[in-house]
Amino acid sequence: MAQVVADRRDIDFVLHEQLGVADLSKHELFRDFTKKTIDLVVSEARNLAVKELLPFLKEADEQGCTFENGEVRVPKAFHKAYELFREGEWIAMCDEPDWGGQGMPSTVALAANNYFNGANYPFMLHNILIHGAGKLVECFGTPEQKDTYLKNMYTGKWGGSMLLTEPEAGSDVGALTTKAVKNDDGTYSITGNKIFISSGENDLVENIIHPVLARIEGAPEGTAGISLFLVPKFRVNPDGSLGAFNDVVCTGIEEKMGIHGSPTCSLSLGGKGECIGTLLGDENKGMRAMFVMMNEARLHVGMQGFANASASYLNALNYARTRVQGKAVEAPRDSANVAIIHHPEIRRILLTMKSYTEGMRSLLFYVGYLEDRIKTADTTDEKSRCQGMIDVLIPVAKGYITDRAFELCSQGLDVFGGYGFTREYPQEQLLRDCKITQIYEGTNSIQAMDLLGRKLMLNKGEAFKTLTEEVQNTIRSSKGIDRISGLADSLDHTVEKLVEIAEMLVTDMGTGNIRQAFANARPFLDVTGDTLMAWMLLWRAGIAAEKLDGNPRKKDIHFYQGQMKGARFFINTVLPVTRGKMEAIRTGDMSCLEIEDAEFG
Amino acid sequence: MAQVVADRRDIDFVLHEQLGVADLSKHELFRDFTKKTIDLVVSEARNLAVKELLPFLKEADEQGCTFENGEVRVPKAFHKAYELFREGEWIAMCDEPDWGGQGMPSTVALAANNYFNGANYPFMLHNILIHGAGKLVECFGTPEQKDTYLKNMYTGKWGGSMLLTEPEAGSDVGALTTKAVKNDDGTYSITGNKIFISSGENDLVENIIHPVLARIEGAPEGTAGISLFLVPKFRVNPDGSLGAFNDVVCTGIEEKMGIHGSPTCSLSLGGKGECIGTLLGDENKGMRAMFVMMNEARLHVGMQGFANASASYLNALNYARTRVQGKAVEAPRDSANVAIIHHPEIRRILLTMKSYTEGMRSLLFYVGYLEDRIKTADTTDEKSRCQGMIDVLIPVAKGYITDRAFELCSQGLDVFGGYGFTREYPQEQLLRDCKITQIYEGTNSIQAMDLLGRKLMLNKGEAFKTLTEEVQNTIRSSKGIDRISGLADSLDHTVEKLVEIAEMLVTDMGTGNIRQAFANARPFLDVTGDTLMAWMLLWRAGIAAEKLDGNPRKKDIHFYQGQMKGARFFINTVLPVTRGKMEAIRTGDMSCLEIEDAEFG
Repeated sequence: MAQVVADRRDIDFVLHEQLGVADLSKHELFRDFTKKTIDLVVSEARNLAVKELLPFLKEADEQGCTFENGEVRVPKAFHKAYELFREGEWIAMCDEPDWGGQGMPSTVALAANNYFNGANYPFMLHNILIHGAGKLVECFGTPEQKDTYLKNMYTGKWGGSMLLTEPEAGSDVGALTTKAVKNDDGTYSITGNKIFISSGENDLVENIIHPVLARIEGAPEGTAGISLFLVPKFRVNPDGSLGAFNDVVCTGIEEKMGIHGSPTCSLSLGGKGECIGTLLGDENKGMRAMFVMMNEARLHVGMQGFANASASYLNALNYARTRVQGKAVEAPRDSANVAIIHHPEIRRILLTMKSYTEGMRSLLFYVGYLEDRIKTADTTDEKSRCQGMIDVLIPVAKGYITDRAFELCSQGLDVFGGYGFTREYPQEQLLRDCKITQIYEGTNSIQAMDLLGRKLMLNKGEAFKTLTEEVQNTIRSSKGIDRISGLADSLDHTVEKLVEIAEMLVTDMGTGNIRQAFANARPFLDVTGDTLMAWMLLWRAGIAAEKLDGNPRKKDIHFYQGQMKGARFFINTVLPVTRGKMEAIRTGDMSCLEIEDAEFG
Repeated sequence: MAQVVADRRDIDFVLHEQLGVADLSKHELFRDFTKKTIDLVVSEARNLAVKELLPFLKEADEQGCTFENGEVRVPKAFHKAYELFREGEWIAMCDEPDWGGQGMPSTVALAANNYFNGANYPFMLHNILIHGAGKLVECFGTPEQKDTYLKNMYTGKWGGSMLLTEPEAGSDVGALTTKAVKNDDGTYSITGNKIFISSGENDLVENIIHPVLARIEGAPEGTAGISLFLVPKFRVNPDGSLGAFNDVVCTGIEEKMGIHGSPTCSLSLGGKGECIGTLLGDENKGMRAMFVMMNEARLHVGMQGFANASASYLNALNYARTRVQGKAVEAPRDSANVAIIHHPEIRRILLTMKSYTEGMRSLLFYVGYLEDRIKTADTTDEKSRCQGMIDVLIPVAKGYITDRAFELCSQGLDVFGGYGFTREYPQEQLLRDCKITQIYEGTNSIQAMDLLGRKLMLNKGEAFKTLTEEVQNTIRSSKGIDRISGLADSLDHTVEKLVEIAEMLVTDMGTGNIRQAFANARPFLDVTGDTLMAWMLLWRAGIAAEKLDGNPRKKDIHFYQGQMKGARFFINTVLPVTRGKMEAIRTGDMSCLEIEDAEFG
């Protein structure tokens, strides 16, 4: 049967042949996650995704969410799926079993999430929000807060959301105006209006726990005066039963381009003066708490975008194999028509999609793997090396990957021709849904600024350097493998140029040309991402080359050959363009800064 | 007041300062189209577009079309707008006054269409279809067919559509199976099923005239056996009144990603054996007739995509000027927040959008201008030179421009952040609507193959050569202008490389490496398009430089400075990437051909 959603052979390759995830089981923390268990988890995730989530992707998109009298209903099919999801304990895959988690390695959870998000990403948003809110409670909650909320969240009994954005505070979180006033009992009365709150209100769960960013009366302006609060929809009695309604009122949901199954709510807090929250973490340290969560959330958004592209690729591949249209371009006029996979133009699109999606999968799983290594590392030095690499990789995993994922979904639609534009096939929905991944959880403009302004010089530039050294390690070992030594040379040349460009931009920032540097933030994100894609693909090809030189199982030969061609294609046809982009950055054209506002038109 | 839909100053610049369209009025054919008249036409089009079409863009998208009992209803607001459109005689802008046309230059009609399509492209599709069908009648109809149908179509009393596609015959038109059997009276009985028929059925008009591609019984297979027929929805009595229903039954409409106001119909012809058509043009020459129309239709699709981008740009610009978010990146922490147009990343996006949309406008209008020159040329040599350039430019005007337009609409959405994803603003609809322009009227894959396989060697390569010579003329004169001589050098270098690449691909095709050449068709379309964009922008900058060196009116200085910066930005930051793409083509990587089908996954 044709593969859908995600390529299982490729997932196994990354988990076992590229990253060797099962080795983590040598460590006490992951001792249960042997190769056999890992494979079982991935199989279960695939089954659930393909059999239970994928079939209602379209139906949920058409039904969307409804809003009436302050109540939000999600698509009908979500209810059954959500029960299955809870039963399978998929909400808190990596978290502590004591709190209802499964304690699995992040890398393995990403494999499961590849299936879940590729099958039904709007549905998955509910679960992600619950987990993210729960994680805040786990990291910053008092023992009492944890006891009250955490297990109920990680097991999906209660929902969760994240209340950051306000109408005038989007990318600029520091501008928020939601207010918290301390009560005599130590709780806070919250008043304010929040928008764009995914899962802020819904009928999947009996209670929703909202982490809320707000400013305590008298606190400083800007981000330095923001605190984090825990605000339940219904207050919780000491015995754990639900108490009074906590004055969190949904005032509407957005009509959107996509993710119609995920309600995007406007919430009014404390309109009747009865919204009570408790401080989560320390006063005025709300932004720091959010930053702790941000890596996880942004990695996950990268996974969402990628998973749409992964599904779109396999749909396009399957369609191209069966859709007969036109004769081969090289064939005589009277020859038979062929499946469109035979046409060079379609093959070019498919190999583009294949190489990018596989490179993305490796990069995302690699970030998860670094998280797992932090948990199992023996030395703090090793931990901080891994953390530094994660910090540099996050804006790429979110910004670069979702930018490319949207383009891939567009190409995946194109393969279907006119049918791709219709709702008869899933391609147009994957494209529509994917679009938001470029925007939320920090727009990709913000990601680009994060990479350039914060991450490039993190730990005095050590983190970025560590990463490029890892790339160079792969290059070095690849140069010793005949089949790919030429590709290694090309990437070597590209990395060298990347480092030069990075140094140039750092110099710009250090010498007061800050605007000049930031005008190149997005192009720099692009070339960094391209280089890392090529790294992942070269790494893959190195493994494949060795396997091919060994005695591979017959059914694996195709797979490994596919790896060789994907890497070659990307390095030979994308990297020259990357180097052109680097050249454009190096040119230092500043027209976009010099142009006066009135000259735009 | 802020500009919307299209920048009037820029339209005037292209019409009068770049192309000198008013000079066409020296010719008898266009004697009425003095500068004053042209400006009046553009003003009227703008008024109609902004006041009558734009306001219901969203409403029509939400209402969509309905299908019930074989009848299709278009959005309510279309009816009033359509009457206004008919009253203004906008359907047949360039056609013969004898048949209800306005006889205006194509270039001027494109300016009007920039407004119309940017304001409400789904509405405009109806008018385009009527005109296209009418044009077929005008070009290939007998005097009787013209008398019966043409004026009623060009004046919008009757509608029109175009019946090409069938479920198994999309990009491969030659695979169609709709059948025509000759009757004793010389008419044909038509049977078959057509899909994806825009405006194939609707309640705007009392009759719809369908040009239909079908195969006469016994005709050869493939495109060589296809004939064109005229099939009305209701037969027409000798006195011009409507007769019997002609057995053209709408069996459904597509649910689509966008253009919801345009019904995409499935039509069943002759289900009861009562569908009668008359031959339009010669037997088995249907494809040739379609090819005659194709340039016009594809140019128009380029205009549709571009017009969405043009509207998206102005929306983004206006939003960026008023949306306050965050502090300036170079400013101290306690400084005030700024409008996002101040942020380097937003400026880069806006200048990207500005330079592309302006380059596109020039390129599209230039094609129209070449059409006008053919009509007014004194020599057949001049006519054929212009026709050759048009033939080469069409796949670029359709394929390259709609590819870029979709990307621009995506960036235009991004400028709005989370709001861009909501239906509160038009950006997401412009993006959704724009997507189909990459697909219909020949997918952009087909456009790429057309440029490489047909147009590059048209007239033994003379047509392509003529075009590059025109580019070089602009380069030569630009080298004499101090302010832009460096930009001219850069473009010169790029054109040289483009010609080399073209020669390489022609050699590939000539030496049997046809698949190899076609694997580079799409990248070749991209680099050709980039080069032509740069040409148009350099041309514009040359004019602006001269005006700035003169004594420009104060309010024009901003405009001309904007031209200088747009050209500089594009040539300095996009062309290096273009040259990277050329390098990738030159590398000749053929992984996408060498990969075996099973290796894709």
